[in-house]
Formats: sequence, structure tokens, C-alpha cells
Amino acid sequence: MGAKNPFEGLEVRSRRGGPVKEPLSRDHIVAEALRLLEKEGLEGMSLRKVAAALETGPASLYAYVEDLEGLKALVLDRALAAVDLSGARWRDWRERLKAVLLSYLMVLYKGRGLAQLALTTSAVGPHTMRIVETLLGLLEEGGLDRATAAWSVDLLLLYVTAIAAEQSRGHDPSHPGGPIARAIAGASAEEYPHVHASRDDLLAGDGAERFSWAIHVLLSGMLQCPAPMGRASGRLKPSR
Amino acid sequence: MGAKNPFEGLEVRSRRGGPVKEPLSRDHIVAEALRLLEKEGLEGMSLRKVAAALETGPASLYAYVEDLEGLKALVLDRALAAVDLSGARWRDWRERLKAVLLSYLMVLYKGRGLAQLALTTSAVGPHTMRIVETLLGLLEEGGLDRATAAWSVDLLLLYVTAIAAEQSRGHDPSHPGGPIARAIAGASAEEYPHVHASRDDLLAGDGAERFSWAIHVLLSGMLQCPAPMGRASGRLKPSR
Repeated sequence: MGAKNPFEGLEVRSRRGGPVKEPLSRDHIVAEALRLLEKEGLEGMSLRKVAAALETGPASLYAYVEDLEGLKALVLDRALAAVDLSGARWRDWRERLKAVLLSYLMVLYKGRGLAQLALTTSAVGPHTMRIVETLLGLLEEGGLDRATAAWSVDLLLLYVTAIAAEQSRGHDPSHPGGPIARAIAGASAEEYPHVHASRDDLLAGDGAERFSWAIHVLLSGMLQCPAPMGRASGRLKPSR
Repeated sequence: MGAKNPFEGLEVRSRRGGPVKEPLSRDHIVAEALRLLEKEGLEGMSLRKVAAALETGPASLYAYVEDLEGLKALVLDRALAAVDLSGARWRDWRERLKAVLLSYLMVLYKGRGLAQLALTTSAVGPHTMRIVETLLGLLEEGGLDRATAAWSVDLLLLYVTAIAAEQSRGHDPSHPGGPIARAIAGASAEEYPHVHASRDDLLAGDGAERFSWAIHVLLSGMLQCPAPMGRASGRLKPSR
């Protein structure tokens, strides 16, 4: 929080002669920024545009948010409040974990620009922490040592965020008439023998099938490969 | 390629009275677009800006590139020409594969905006094909059936692209004084017991250690989890 007067912008509003607005608050700013992000994408969420939408000047925002990076972190965390962590209907820890990751994916899909934001913003705040806490618990329930579980959370969230970022721009690699399908179908057996031989497999499966398989791959790999420092720390013995 | 006259823009240049420029070509356009991308990021690479840098009008470009998406695909493929596929000094297929992925990561790191481009652009073109061909060959050498190798290439490239996209924005989760480190260190044992217990592990390891471990996890998982259609197709029996 800066030292500026949070009501600096009010005069601007009163000069416009419009109806009396609610006073600025961090909550209002974050809500408006999220609305702009979902409507216009990451480029639409500048401090200038948020201020304009709230009918105030950018300077007024600095009393509530440190800078654009700070605002992005608040917006991301607010959006992640929608992630469903219960996974209650599954008994198996893998299925519960997959349900949480799927909910995270769906939340990122929903808002245009949200996946881009998640990929490039430091994820902090209570809702992010809640997700990390849940995933750590599930992975330890599955038998991972504490260190491997810690690195695994990072890898799982990065994978799912990347899927969302890739797809949210309308990028669909397996689209039958799309450029990737055309390029693969056109690869010659002489120049690209493996691509040619695998052309059907390269384009097979929909997003849901590939997602499910990838999570399966990641969990199997994690169960087999303890993180380097995990070999020493163990599951029940804290690393400090 | 459109039907427009590629020299449409020349008059603009002659009116400026500058030195005689080389005539436009797809090669020039792609080289200039890549230069702009690396200098200004993805936002800097609009058709308008590329045209301005070449001292012509955007309309002139349409004789050489179909649209911005087409230009992006050409730029990405040109950048990927720098990926080193030899991995010659390693005998083990895993090490050769890791060397290729590391070279791919380094290429994406180098150019600002390149990782973002790779995440959101349909990767086609000869240099992309060359990378897919090499990875497929290495994975089949490692014993993966053809279908699993095909899906694995996608997963490996997505993971590495995401790492590059995350880091190229200056996002370093494990930075000691960074917001993530502060948030994790500040997580209370009551509210977030797993985060609190794992706080050291969550921040342990540098990028290279985590990358190496993640590739190990992915390969181990892939070797254990055949893709759904892979179970039927097998390695030596083509899927058609």
C-alpha cells in the first residue's frame, strides 16, 4: 500500500456530474480488473484502463495496489477462488487430484486472458495457498515424500496452466482441417519417416483424453522419481 | 499467398526520398518480424509495425503472408531453426532427448516473446517438423510404442514451452525475496499445515535441477503409461 490519498480520484468523478459512486476500495479495483481481463484479455487490464472503467485516474489506484504486478496477483487469486477443491465423490486420491486439476483448468478456460495471467504472475494469496495445500495433502496421501510432493505441485499446476494458455487462444492442434493437421498429413515419408508413420497418432484423441493420459503420466513418473533432496528428507521426517 | 501486388508499397518508400531498398520478400518480412518480436515482445509484432519497419504499408505484406497468424507460424519456425538436434555426445537416448529439449528451451529463452509465440501459435514448418521427427525417433528408440511416442512429443514440448513462457517474463518462483517465497514463508501451520511443513522444499532447487527432474518424471511416466490407442497399435504394427 502506498501513501497516497485513496480519495484523490473522487473530484474527477464529481466534475462529471454523474450519480454518486461508491468509494474506491481494493475489492472494487480487483473486481473491475478481473472483468476487464475476462472481456479484453491481458492487454485490456492496464492500470489506466481499470482506472478509466472506475471513472478515476490511475494515480488513485496506487493507494490500494502497489503496481500492475500486484494487481495481477490479486486478480489471479480472486479468480482462483472458484476452483473446487472438494473432489468429494472420489475415493481414490488420484481421482480427487484429477478433479481438482480439472476444476483449475476450467476456471482458467472461462476467463479470456486468465491462463496467460496465471502463467506469468506470481501466484500468491489465500486461494492459491488453498490449492497448493490441497494438492500437497493429496500427493502425500498417495505416498510421495514431502520434497517430491512439493516439486510435483509446481509441475502439475504448470502443465495445467500451459494447457489452458495454449487452448484459450483458440489453438487446437488436432483440429482436422487446421494447419497442424495439414502439415502432419503432408510430411513425406522420405524426409520425416517417423512423423509420416505416426501421422494418425499425432492427431488422435481429444483434449480430455490427452489431459487424462498426461495426468496419469505425471503421477506415475512422480511416484517413481523422488526429487533429489527428497531422498534425504523422507516423508515423515521434516527437512529441517 | 494473396493476389495483391507485392510492390504496392514501393511508392511509399520512393516518396520518402530515402535510399533504394531491397524489394519485399517473404524472407525479409519474416526476418523483420522476428527482430521486432525479440525486441518488443509479442505485442510489438503486428502487421502494421512490421510494415512500418520495412517502410511500406500493411497491405503490401498480404502478398507474402496470409495474415498475422500465418506470419507468426513462419517466425516461430525460423526461430526454431536454431535448435540443436544432434545431441551427439550422449550415448543414452534419454540424455540425447534432454539435450534437444534443453536446446529448444534455450532458443525460446533468447528471444523476448518467443515463448509466448510458441505457446499460442500452430507449430508447423520444416524446422518444427525436424524437431518432432527427432523426438519421435528418440522416444521409439527408448521403447515407447508409436502412439505413446506421438502423445509424448506433444507433452514434452508443451512442458518446455511453458517453462520458457513462465520464466521469460521474469517470473522466478523461487527467488528468495520474491512474493512467492514471502507468501510460502508466511503460511501459518494452522491454516496451511502442508504448505508450512513443505516450505523449504517448495522453494528448494534451481531451474536446472527442477527441469532435469521434471524430464525424468515425464519419461518415467511415459514408459509406464501407454497412450490409450497405443495399447492396440503397438510399436511395430502401424496403426493403419
